Amino acid sequence: MKFSCRRTDLLDAVNIAERAVASKSTMNILEGLFIEAKENEIRFLGNNLELCIDCSIPGTVDVKGSCVVKANLFSDAVKKLPAHVDEAKIEVNESNVILLSCGNAKFNFSIAGADDFPRPQEIDAIDDICVKEYLLKNMIRQTVYAVSQNDTKPYLTGILFDVKQNELSVVGCDGYRLAIRREELIHENPLKFIMQGKTARELLSLLGETDYEVKIKVSDKQAQLTLKNCTVTTRLIDGDYLNYEGVAKHENTLFIVTDTKDIADSIDRASLIASEAVKAHVLLKIEDGQVHINCETVLGQVKDKFEVEMQGDPIEIAFNPRYLLEAFKNADCKEIKLSFSTALNPVVIQPAEGNSFYYIVLPVRVH
Amino acid sequence: MKFSCRRTDLLDAVNIAERAVASKSTMNILEGLFIEAKENEIRFLGNNLELCIDCSIPGTVDVKGSCVVKANLFSDAVKKLPAHVDEAKIEVNESNVILLSCGNAKFNFSIAGADDFPRPQEIDAIDDICVKEYLLKNMIRQTVYAVSQNDTKPYLTGILFDVKQNELSVVGCDGYRLAIRREELIHENPLKFIMQGKTARELLSLLGETDYEVKIKVSDKQAQLTLKNCTVTTRLIDGDYLNYEGVAKHENTLFIVTDTKDIADSIDRASLIASEAVKAHVLLKIEDGQVHINCETVLGQVKDKFEVEMQGDPIEIAFNPRYLLEAFKNADCKEIKLSFSTALNPVVIQPAEGNSFYYIVLPVRVH
Repeated sequence: MKFSCRRTDLLDAVNIAERAVASKSTMNILEGLFIEAKENEIRFLGNNLELCIDCSIPGTVDVKGSCVVKANLFSDAVKKLPAHVDEAKIEVNESNVILLSCGNAKFNFSIAGADDFPRPQEIDAIDDICVKEYLLKNMIRQTVYAVSQNDTKPYLTGILFDVKQNELSVVGCDGYRLAIRREELIHENPLKFIMQGKTARELLSLLGETDYEVKIKVSDKQAQLTLKNCTVTTRLIDGDYLNYEGVAKHENTLFIVTDTKDIADSIDRASLIASEAVKAHVLLKIEDGQVHINCETVLGQVKDKFEVEMQGDPIEIAFNPRYLLEAFKNADCKEIKLSFSTALNPVVIQPAEGNSFYYIVLPVRVH
Repeated sequence: MKFSCRRTDLLDAVNIAERAVASKSTMNILEGLFIEAKENEIRFLGNNLELCIDCSIPGTVDVKGSCVVKANLFSDAVKKLPAHVDEAKIEVNESNVILLSCGNAKFNFSIAGADDFPRPQEIDAIDDICVKEYLLKNMIRQTVYAVSQNDTKPYLTGILFDVKQNELSVVGCDGYRLAIRREELIHENPLKFIMQGKTARELLSLLGETDYEVKIKVSDKQAQLTLKNCTVTTRLIDGDYLNYEGVAKHENTLFIVTDTKDIADSIDRASLIASEAVKAHVLLKIEDGQVHINCETVLGQVKDKFEVEMQGDPIEIAFNPRYLLEAFKNADCKEIKLSFSTALNPVVIQPAEGNSFYYIVLPVRVH
């Protein structure tokens, strides 16, 4: 294998593919980065068996071939190449050593054979959808925060993509809160799949803010996303998702509209003493156009109040402050609407205008 | 105790005094922040017995008094006060609870009595010097990196201040490398003291870039620095410092001048494989106006070379790359001069122009 390419291209490709490299694995080869020099193209591949990222860059290939390098070492070396030099050269010699050179700087590392490295398979797509890059990023960000961190119900550790009636809903839920994000999507057949939360979080880093159309091909077991500069293949989570549309069907009797940052800051202050104490909750008392916030733990007490637009009956209701805070922080709009019924029913959080997201947070029973 | 003050003043004072609060201590009271309301002035005090920071701000005091609050909790609360409100109010009630309020936000925390909190004593100064703030910061930064991280020779964990012949020298050394930073200082009598490395590092955060004259009063056991916005009292390290002026008195036979960033980047690349391996060194071969750098470990090999201005005989000499790198990174000038004699004698690193710093690094014996 022997090729040259632009140093910055190499840096980008390694940074991207590295995201799918296993940091620790019983299979040593998965801690490696696969490099393949093809005709005028060099391919970098990271694969931890859950997620595979495949990134190609242009280059001048003298000798085709492939190898696997220790990912963290190679990536650090690429980052430290002299910034004033444009071209990087890579060559594997007969003694199975890879030589990376850039200007006067030269690195030699030993390599592993490429045969054992798991290549992603072309997936047997049953359907596909296209979503604009910036929109996909936004829909993932506004739902993935709500997924479960423990594995007792595996499907809750992922986000649901649900396509039907010309609408795409992305849903995250951990049993205590639920986040739904909807956008129009013209598509004939219904399609449902659950993407792993980990993969979704990596996608947040890989996706940009353009309106490039990301194609998502879906098979029974896998999804493959064609991003602008790489291809991401990921295992899907088996099983049925919960019936999210049946949640919080109660009738609401109190509606408030408030500045998102005001209520977020206020809950943030309360969570200062709640986060460190066990099972602490924050109490919201909403009446006469005011929200009174109160939190009391062994560490002390925090009180706050602010004015809101209010319609309906007063309420006293308690929440885990972290759940509220994460919902507010991912709301992405200046004003939000909160809808309540009783102290035992969940609150519904929506944008004051429009219906792009729909968040539900279960209250804490205090009496 | 009852007072009001500007929220931003409160924030600044707590941020500063908090730096001297013990994060974990067998004496609970040392994890606290001492607050004292005096006539038109509020004083905040952190004291971990090694270092004490005393910071006062103006305020309107209704009831004088003092108390000790849990430092991390109180500091977090102050940071989270509503940013649009100017005034913060603090009051201690009869049940030994401190009430911090700012706009509608109110925090209650329990407090400890102030009697047990160790106040700094007025020190019995034997001498004092004044150094401009920005200069003191620079002199500390350019020497403290070289102090020892282990306690076998306590005096090496601190930096020496040595005043004589109208010159202040600040010195850091760990036995393998030495950093000297000199500036003119008109002062009649010789004065020597060793400041703890920890204290010196805290001072880096506290000192600004102005030419405010910091007064340093020195007693047998303590030093007290009057900064622009606080007073720092610290224990000094007992004992004699090594005779740093007798180090590296050999005659040098090779001199090179090089771009500081070039050589630092080059050693940084070499250290990529050296830092992870045991007892790795980087070999410098200097001849014909070129520096050849080579580093070989179990992880691979890194080579580099660059041109330098050179006067004298060629040399091959090996170093711990970290020591070289830290010296270069703290050099603070575009070009540096390196002076060598033999492969067994230390290298002297100085600015290409002037003599503000003087660094010495011992080589590694490889043959």
